[in-house]
Amino acid sequence: MDKVNLRDKFALFDDHWSPKIVGELNDSYVKLAKFKGEFVWHHHANEDELFLLVRGSLLIKFRDHEVRLEPGEFVIVPRGVEHLPVAEQEVEVLLLEPKSTLNTGEKIGARTVADLQRI
Amino acid sequence: MDKVNLRDKFALFDDHWSPKIVGELNDSYVKLAKFKGEFVWHHHANEDELFLLVRGSLLIKFRDHEVRLEPGEFVIVPRGVEHLPVAEQEVEVLLLEPKSTLNTGEKIGARTVADLQRI
Repeated sequence: MDKVNLRDKFALFDDHWSPKIVGELNDSYVKLAKFKGEFVWHHHANEDELFLLVRGSLLIKFRDHEVRLEPGEFVIVPRGVEHLPVAEQEVEVLLLEPKSTLNTGEKIGARTVADLQRI
Repeated sequence: MDKVNLRDKFALFDDHWSPKIVGELNDSYVKLAKFKGEFVWHHHANEDELFLLVRGSLLIKFRDHEVRLEPGEFVIVPRGVEHLPVAEQEVEVLLLEPKSTLNTGEKIGARTVADLQRI
């Protein structure tokens, strides 16, 4: 039951699009990630996913609209909904999602991170 | 898929120890709460609970140690572990817990909020 300081954890890594596990509760992981640039369109068939923005400004595109997150704002992407995160500048994000979630959803490829690091 | 701005949501209520639902994903609710003073010792038999501090300084006592949360810090209280939140001054907290979670855990009483409000 140690506390987790988000700032300290974000200082431990520099890579983009590679979420790190910083906590687990029930069937979910709390993850931190840095994003920069454009990811890939994907969805998660069975998992809802929460993005809470900690630093920067993050655009999340959906097929029919888009949402821009500023620090202190979150969005929940329901299962099955295609989305594309776009970070013009580097952002820091807290993610909450079931342990089964792959970062690229059904779009397995070069950007898939299957073996998540704990920090 | 609207975004949620934490500051805007916290501005909508003033009562203490009465978590409001601001999102749901998978089997969990995202809740916001304001705490002031001392709560009651309790545990949740089957649910892990996350406290992310947004404003203020929150002490969480456990039977054998305590954790002080500052903004940008979180702690996960595992199921079964007794805890007592203490806020000397008002604090704003984001909670994440299964939908089945009662705020007072097994300690049903005057401070139990059974019918959660959505904001």
